[in-house]
Amino acid sequence: MSRIRMDLSYDGSAYHGWQIQENARTVQGTVQKALKELFEQEISLSGCSRTDAGVHAKHFVCHFDTSRTFPWEKLPLALNARLPEDIAVFRATPVSPSFHARFSCQGKSYHYRLINCRIRDPFEKDRAAFWPVPLCAQTMHLAAQDFVGEHDFSAFMATGSQVKDTVRTIFSFSVNRSGDCIDFVVSGNGFLYNMVRIMVGTLIYENLGKLDRSISEIIRSCDRTLAGITVPPQGLYLEQVFY
Amino acid sequence: MSRIRMDLSYDGSAYHGWQIQENARTVQGTVQKALKELFEQEISLSGCSRTDAGVHAKHFVCHFDTSRTFPWEKLPLALNARLPEDIAVFRATPVSPSFHARFSCQGKSYHYRLINCRIRDPFEKDRAAFWPVPLCAQTMHLAAQDFVGEHDFSAFMATGSQVKDTVRTIFSFSVNRSGDCIDFVVSGNGFLYNMVRIMVGTLIYENLGKLDRSISEIIRSCDRTLAGITVPPQGLYLEQVFY
Repeated sequence: MSRIRMDLSYDGSAYHGWQIQENARTVQGTVQKALKELFEQEISLSGCSRTDAGVHAKHFVCHFDTSRTFPWEKLPLALNARLPEDIAVFRATPVSPSFHARFSCQGKSYHYRLINCRIRDPFEKDRAAFWPVPLCAQTMHLAAQDFVGEHDFSAFMATGSQVKDTVRTIFSFSVNRSGDCIDFVVSGNGFLYNMVRIMVGTLIYENLGKLDRSISEIIRSCDRTLAGITVPPQGLYLEQVFY
Repeated sequence: MSRIRMDLSYDGSAYHGWQIQENARTVQGTVQKALKELFEQEISLSGCSRTDAGVHAKHFVCHFDTSRTFPWEKLPLALNARLPEDIAVFRATPVSPSFHARFSCQGKSYHYRLINCRIRDPFEKDRAAFWPVPLCAQTMHLAAQDFVGEHDFSAFMATGSQVKDTVRTIFSFSVNRSGDCIDFVVSGNGFLYNMVRIMVGTLIYENLGKLDRSISEIIRSCDRTLAGITVPPQGLYLEQVFY
């Protein structure tokens, strides 16, 4: 039995997220189908995280176990030939059986792209969120520093989420403007459900003077209703996974 | 009666080109529908050129005549609110009745994007063509200089095209690599049907040593069968229109 780590990227626009579901097109389901075609046996993938419908991954990691032998360095091309154009496997390597895509993960970084100008860009449809009211990236960058460190982030978790331990560590959070695009880049040891999208929505609301409390106070409150909106999924990219 | 010039951009992936057609979704049809909703009268647009299914426009120009008055500088936002996200009008201005989007046009430039690496990029689906065999941009740039000048380009016109005057002037043609992307940028006083896509396909074939003649000889032959392939539409962008 070998354990194979596979690194891939995907445009999530046409998928209901990574995680396999009945009656919905998912990235996991699509890749498992291609593996089954290639190996003529069922392969079950374990992913580094779930991603939501419409969310993208520049770098996603998963693993699977198989008794098959294969020239693994050739798996990306063999599999890409069987995958739709919006998913690409770029690496496959045998790893120790102790490696686990999710449990071995030490941290992740996410990138959120927001187009901030009066007229939207047709080429950013499904690739970025659009916000026509002017925002100041520099002010948001300063405010974002309040997220850095170890905190209970339950105010920044989608309501209804079942997670018990809501303490996470944010390593860094930068906000920069490049032309009409504002790039939010955040890395941390883990993220709660919708946490990045709520943090970005809170920075926007803070920038527009729509919040009653400072970000530090909202963190301490553990109250989701005090934070900002959940920004739409199409701006979000899983950028890196650290092991 | 006023004549209004409208400048727009669109991602052509979901459209059967610019030109209105029965039973097919086109950019012209979509914009005319939005204008009709806004003005409650039929508006007929004249475009600067036809674009093929799947071809994009960073900058497309059209005009229309209307007896309506309107604060024209506000038309882009009013119209964009009624248009799908893959089309954006960015300017509308009253012009002289002698202006004609097609006949006043002095030239155009096109950009062709080719991803040239082993593993495709999911985020370039519908935005670029993919060519995994290594190509040399510098060699193609040198070869492309043979296109510059006034020539009969009938060897570079889709067969079946009805145009009589097949003489065009190419002002410039550059080929540059930027990371995995090769950018072909060509400007000229006009282009025959599929001409840019056949010129790019011919540069690729020349680079791979697949042609029996030099590009100058193929131009002189006026024989389509001697030129290279027609590369796919999704890499092509109408970049600028000169008046």
